[in-house]
Amino acid sequence: MPGSTDILAGLSRIGPELEALYRDLHSHPELGHAEHRTSNRVARLLTDCGYDVRDGIGDTGVAGVLANGDGPVVLVRADMDALPIEERTGLSYASATTAPGEGGTPQPVMHACGHDVHVTCLLGAARLMAESRDAWNGTLVALFQCAEETGDGADAMVADGLTDRVPRPEVCLAQHVLPMPAGRVGTRSGPVLSAADNYRITVHGRGAHGSQPQASVDPVVIASMIVVRLQTIVSREIGMLTPAVVTVGSVHAGTNPNNVPESARMEINVRTYDEDTRAKVRAAIERIAKAECAAADTPKPPDIERFGGFPPTVNDEATTGKVARAFARHFGDRATTLDLQTASEDFSEIPKAFGVPYTYWGIGGTDPDQYARAVKNGTLDSDVPVNHSARFAPVVQPTIDTGVRAIVVAAAQWLTRAP
Amino acid sequence: MPGSTDILAGLSRIGPELEALYRDLHSHPELGHAEHRTSNRVARLLTDCGYDVRDGIGDTGVAGVLANGDGPVVLVRADMDALPIEERTGLSYASATTAPGEGGTPQPVMHACGHDVHVTCLLGAARLMAESRDAWNGTLVALFQCAEETGDGADAMVADGLTDRVPRPEVCLAQHVLPMPAGRVGTRSGPVLSAADNYRITVHGRGAHGSQPQASVDPVVIASMIVVRLQTIVSREIGMLTPAVVTVGSVHAGTNPNNVPESARMEINVRTYDEDTRAKVRAAIERIAKAECAAADTPKPPDIERFGGFPPTVNDEATTGKVARAFARHFGDRATTLDLQTASEDFSEIPKAFGVPYTYWGIGGTDPDQYARAVKNGTLDSDVPVNHSARFAPVVQPTIDTGVRAIVVAAAQWLTRAP
Amino acid sequence: MPGSTDILAGLSRIGPELEALYRDLHSHPELGHAEHRTSNRVARLLTDCGYDVRDGIGDTGVAGVLANGDGPVVLVRADMDALPIEERTGLSYASATTAPGEGGTPQPVMHACGHDVHVTCLLGAARLMAESRDAWNGTLVALFQCAEETGDGADAMVADGLTDRVPRPEVCLAQHVLPMPAGRVGTRSGPVLSAADNYRITVHGRGAHGSQPQASVDPVVIASMIVVRLQTIVSREIGMLTPAVVTVGSVHAGTNPNNVPESARMEINVRTYDEDTRAKVRAAIERIAKAECAAADTPKPPDIERFGGFPPTVNDEATTGKVARAFARHFGDRATTLDLQTASEDFSEIPKAFGVPYTYWGIGGTDPDQYARAVKNGTLDSDVPVNHSARFAPVVQPTIDTGVRAIVVAAAQWLTRAP
Amino acid sequence: MPGSTDILAGLSRIGPELEALYRDLHSHPELGHAEHRTSNRVARLLTDCGYDVRDGIGDTGVAGVLANGDGPVVLVRADMDALPIEERTGLSYASATTAPGEGGTPQPVMHACGHDVHVTCLLGAARLMAESRDAWNGTLVALFQCAEETGDGADAMVADGLTDRVPRPEVCLAQHVLPMPAGRVGTRSGPVLSAADNYRITVHGRGAHGSQPQASVDPVVIASMIVVRLQTIVSREIGMLTPAVVTVGSVHAGTNPNNVPESARMEINVRTYDEDTRAKVRAAIERIAKAECAAADTPKPPDIERFGGFPPTVNDEATTGKVARAFARHFGDRATTLDLQTASEDFSEIPKAFGVPYTYWGIGGTDPDQYARAVKNGTLDSDVPVNHSARFAPVVQPTIDTGVRAIVVAAAQWLTRAP
Repeated sequence: MPGSTDILAGLSRIGPELEALYRDLHSHPELGHAEHRTSNRVARLLTDCGYDVRDGIGDTGVAGVLANGDGPVVLVRADMDALPIEERTGLSYASATTAPGEGGTPQPVMHACGHDVHVTCLLGAARLMAESRDAWNGTLVALFQCAEETGDGADAMVADGLTDRVPRPEVCLAQHVLPMPAGRVGTRSGPVLSAADNYRITVHGRGAHGSQPQASVDPVVIASMIVVRLQTIVSREIGMLTPAVVTVGSVHAGTNPNNVPESARMEINVRTYDEDTRAKVRAAIERIAKAECAAADTPKPPDIERFGGFPPTVNDEATTGKVARAFARHFGDRATTLDLQTASEDFSEIPKAFGVPYTYWGIGGTDPDQYARAVKNGTLDSDVPVNHSARFAPVVQPTIDTGVRAIVVAAAQWLTRAP
Repeated sequence: MPGSTDILAGLSRIGPELEALYRDLHSHPELGHAEHRTSNRVARLLTDCGYDVRDGIGDTGVAGVLANGDGPVVLVRADMDALPIEERTGLSYASATTAPGEGGTPQPVMHACGHDVHVTCLLGAARLMAESRDAWNGTLVALFQCAEETGDGADAMVADGLTDRVPRPEVCLAQHVLPMPAGRVGTRSGPVLSAADNYRITVHGRGAHGSQPQASVDPVVIASMIVVRLQTIVSREIGMLTPAVVTVGSVHAGTNPNNVPESARMEINVRTYDEDTRAKVRAAIERIAKAECAAADTPKPPDIERFGGFPPTVNDEATTGKVARAFARHFGDRATTLDLQTASEDFSEIPKAFGVPYTYWGIGGTDPDQYARAVKNGTLDSDVPVNHSARFAPVVQPTIDTGVRAIVVAAAQWLTRAP
Repeated sequence: MPGSTDILAGLSRIGPELEALYRDLHSHPELGHAEHRTSNRVARLLTDCGYDVRDGIGDTGVAGVLANGDGPVVLVRADMDALPIEERTGLSYASATTAPGEGGTPQPVMHACGHDVHVTCLLGAARLMAESRDAWNGTLVALFQCAEETGDGADAMVADGLTDRVPRPEVCLAQHVLPMPAGRVGTRSGPVLSAADNYRITVHGRGAHGSQPQASVDPVVIASMIVVRLQTIVSREIGMLTPAVVTVGSVHAGTNPNNVPESARMEINVRTYDEDTRAKVRAAIERIAKAECAAADTPKPPDIERFGGFPPTVNDEATTGKVARAFARHFGDRATTLDLQTASEDFSEIPKAFGVPYTYWGIGGTDPDQYARAVKNGTLDSDVPVNHSARFAPVVQPTIDTGVRAIVVAAAQWLTRAP
Repeated sequence: MPGSTDILAGLSRIGPELEALYRDLHSHPELGHAEHRTSNRVARLLTDCGYDVRDGIGDTGVAGVLANGDGPVVLVRADMDALPIEERTGLSYASATTAPGEGGTPQPVMHACGHDVHVTCLLGAARLMAESRDAWNGTLVALFQCAEETGDGADAMVADGLTDRVPRPEVCLAQHVLPMPAGRVGTRSGPVLSAADNYRITVHGRGAHGSQPQASVDPVVIASMIVVRLQTIVSREIGMLTPAVVTVGSVHAGTNPNNVPESARMEINVRTYDEDTRAKVRAAIERIAKAECAAADTPKPPDIERFGGFPPTVNDEATTGKVARAFARHFGDRATTLDLQTASEDFSEIPKAFGVPYTYWGIGGTDPDQYARAVKNGTLDSDVPVNHSARFAPVVQPTIDTGVRAIVVAAAQWLTRAP
């Protein structure tokens, strides 16, 4: 009975090509919604393998569909975009690319989050699946998403008709390279990535000369009270076993010492791991902002706007269990439990649009010896560059191999009858 | 044309009697509503002088009315009660008196606020007026008020029919002995004594085990936020040239470290000098307490109870001007402008009940040499005992003489045609 | 090869006696340090089984030692004391007992935390071990600890020479009945119970008349600022994946609205799960309290006193793994992972005194049907009474059986060669 | 015996010229340190009258010295600069002037503070004095100060050797046109204008990703705590009868919601009326900022920088009394007591540099009928434009006449022997 082993048989053969592809992608990072070179390359390679390609979804998203007889449909997603960071890895294939920033000034761009690994691995897996059609049945959707870093790529693809442009999958899969030893894969059931929500609060006070506070409603004091009060959400309203963060990242009011300004503006970021807590924190922020404005008798209530942000990523228990068991069989003790991550992702918008379950796992990207030394020296924090660091540089192997294997092994749980 | 000079002619004659009376009153202080010995003595002396006496007004208040032909009615008020303070003046005539306190335990009592001076001076003036009826026309009402220290004596007398029991005056007068040089009299137009209002706020939270704050609505945090927020009333809502104080004198919540309590209670004292500011502060306290409870989503709004307290004393401009000019003529450079006082009084409830103007002035009680030395040494704060101090001990003379003169000179502005 | 199955063979035979013992203990609860009846009963029963008994350790603690040839020494601990709570279970064997409270007033006493279950199960396991000496080798120490609820029983036994009075064990074991379905046992590696630390902070301000705040250093405002500031420990200083709670359970200052008091006192409870976080929170509390006093320029720094409290309970990974695997074999799917508990315990002081590893697990006490209904109705919080509730009433079976089995199975991992 | 009456005899004659001068100055406002046209005009007119002129003092300041025999030296100061405000008075002689602003953009300029009135009146008085030398003895220094609005003009003139370039006066005098009825002059002994001090506080925290507050020291929270804490200076540390304001006019930190920024910056304005309170508030601000940073364990203490600002203007009692009595004789009931002003001035730096006493008074500029209507309607705040308003437009007469008279009458108290 054929299975993932058969599909993966060709991996060593295509390995060198994948490594070259990876280095090329790393050298040519592109910001979200501008992944033109990357998506062209992806579309051409998928076409070459026989995939039916739909591109330009939500700007620069690409989907390749490989129908291989009756059977389940499985969607695997990789994200393509890079970050406005100046690379300091010292790699021979480091990025020297820039993109136009605000006002047209060139800004450096870098694959500092490993999306180049994701693209390479999914293309590798897609090719192996295409080259071993006898080993499986069903349909594989290889989805290359744009603009994950800006939080709006998945939404843009959904808004642009994704669910009508590819077959409805039974399950969605995705992976992320992380600062753990290369070769390792980690799964986690339930909450895995945090939701991130942004709020902008504008406090409307009343300006006055600084010597006449009684003529004012002081938005500086109100904003300060709101900042102070917001601390009680995490300290009092959320239980200690429920992770949540409320960070006021910016506050701005006034232009000089001697006038009470008209208004104050603050921006808040919230991290939670489930929809209940997410809703509870949102309600608390709104309640506190309004009440503090009422305490000061402002001429009108605050404006509270939600913007940007990411949903929580909560892995389906049954789906994750199936994948975790397959990983344990395939990877042995390199298959581990993934720690709860403080980062966020918009991947879950895709299965949500289809109304199907999903699982999202991590693969290691750090040189295992370097990792082991850092653990021994207690210098994990300083010696192992993390995602979004200018020094984030996954080792090419076994990272790429592991990522390809993980996709094939996971997809095979639905697309083959044997493990 | 006769005037105050004629009335005061007998002062030197009755001086020794007044001084003896003062020492006796000082030795026998009585708490508010318990001024039995004092009011009996007052009633008897007024009767002896020919006054028509009404006693037992609002418990222990006494009024003597001396009708002397056609002419204006002038009311002069003195307060009679003492304080639960243990006297430490070292005077030969110091109080050794006690009164039953809470649970029946005896507590020391002392004339630490100088009401004994007030009673003595008004009795002295009343007698001089009675003995010089040719020198003036009209009606003098000598009013001896109970329970000023507890803030309810004037109200009690009004509630007990004061306005029906004495003729309606054209003006009301009162004086207070203060830690300024004896012999001096000070007047002030407009605000002179503060209003004092007490508030009790009960915050209703929700109790929970200390490890489960999410199950609680934490009244300790809410009460703390209210205390912090209340500071902004004086710092932001009241102009810097408008005096106001908001003091949270007590806060109580919880019985042990490990439970979030059900509720918190705080008591607040407010000082203001005019009804507008008084109302503004009251509204702000209520607004802030309610909003902070709303910010925490308490199961119900706070209870806010006003209790005790004193009205502001705001001297009528025309009345005060008339008295101030008369004092300037009579006392020369010993007539000064009185500083705004941080203390409070309920005297103004009496003219308010009659709907008539009033003025309230200060007389010095400190030995002038001691005062001058303290000014020179910069030790006024430590070397000159103030009202309510256990060492407050007005010098008998020229304090008594000055107090009698001040009453007669002021009353004469209405009751005689000459200054 | 004999194992725990052989030892447990007699369980059904002694079951009725154990149930009767449990009901008797439940009817006769005793407060910490006063467990005279309980410890006498324990000592007699241990003696009857052939244990070498040492009693009166740390007041009312009892240890039974059963040496059974060469082999490891295993210590199993049960706690004996009850709580000052009035029982409302409606059970036929409910407590009607009282004990002298403060001032001699009788207060109700109840086994509201299930220590009666713990005593019964350990006595049952001790008897089974004694009656099946052929099935195991080594030494069993059955330790009955006093005064767990007051947090000082384990310390008292250690201070009273426990480590010299029983053989040094290789491992220490303990269990607790919890509001989960009876029949279930839950293990957890690493942190399992929180540390609880209490702090008492006294803020030294300067009193003054309420109208003269400038003469004061206001401890009410300082205490409020400290309460507000303490919220930032959990919201900012501790990561969202690290559980911690800082609760200010009480704050007291002042006696009336009109005086700024001299001082304020607050009591704080802290929950953490590891010594690093525990130390970090302690340092933050001290830093904040001192800095807020410095901000207000208090005449002297605050007094900060630590009192009461419990250490964290952190299960040894290897020990817990060994026990968890044995439970999985014995109990099948009734062996689960225990959730992190917000409660605290002083059990860990005992293995700490010996310098040996330990594991602490939970057994269910709730009727499984009742539990299932509550889950289905979403009424777990209201329908399943928890420890310290006046309605906490473990079902007798399978609670007792499960508790006896768990002890025997766990101890057998060291005392027999077969699982 | 000649006196101010003789000196003022020529006022009606020069009135039309002064009015024309005033309208011309009003049409040609110049910003501080750029008063070139104004100072040239002043210098020429002084020279024409026979004054010995020193110009270019501290940039654009001018002094005219008229020595008239033996006798006291009196310095009278007028300020010359205007404000970057777009005039909206609708006057026929309104300003249409602009000056280069930041980056060279033209900005409108307006005499919105009445310095044109001050210049006109001092030139008028200087001319009358010059034309009536028989009526007085001594020396008049007519000082035209630059850059009062920017707070550095008086300092600049002193730094540029003012005290060596004009004779040392016995007294310094200055006046300001205010929104009170034209024709009125107001004096005040003691504090009259507030000190204004600016502080810039930079809080040094530690930046981190918004989801990792434990890696940060959050300057947004610290700045908020400082703002909240600063409220207690006015509410608790300064007595209610001592005016003081602490306004945080601006606070800025962070650029996006999702990162804890490195630092926060806030700007504070303080108003006080005496050097003791000024120093007390300064010390409290520094103490609070440092302590709040210590409470959060910042990597280094805050930077606290004082910038800009004005000294308090505290009129000498004897000097003010002398002038007030002269005003009462000359102006009758148009001579009043000036209210304490919330504005600030740098005039006092000049007498301070000479070490001599001073007095500073106000003259009315509002149409008396308009003022009376506004009082009657309770619309003073909205209907009477105040200094620095784009609609501030003193009526030409009797404002100019009154200002000239006030200078002459005041100076005559030292320069003539008759009142």
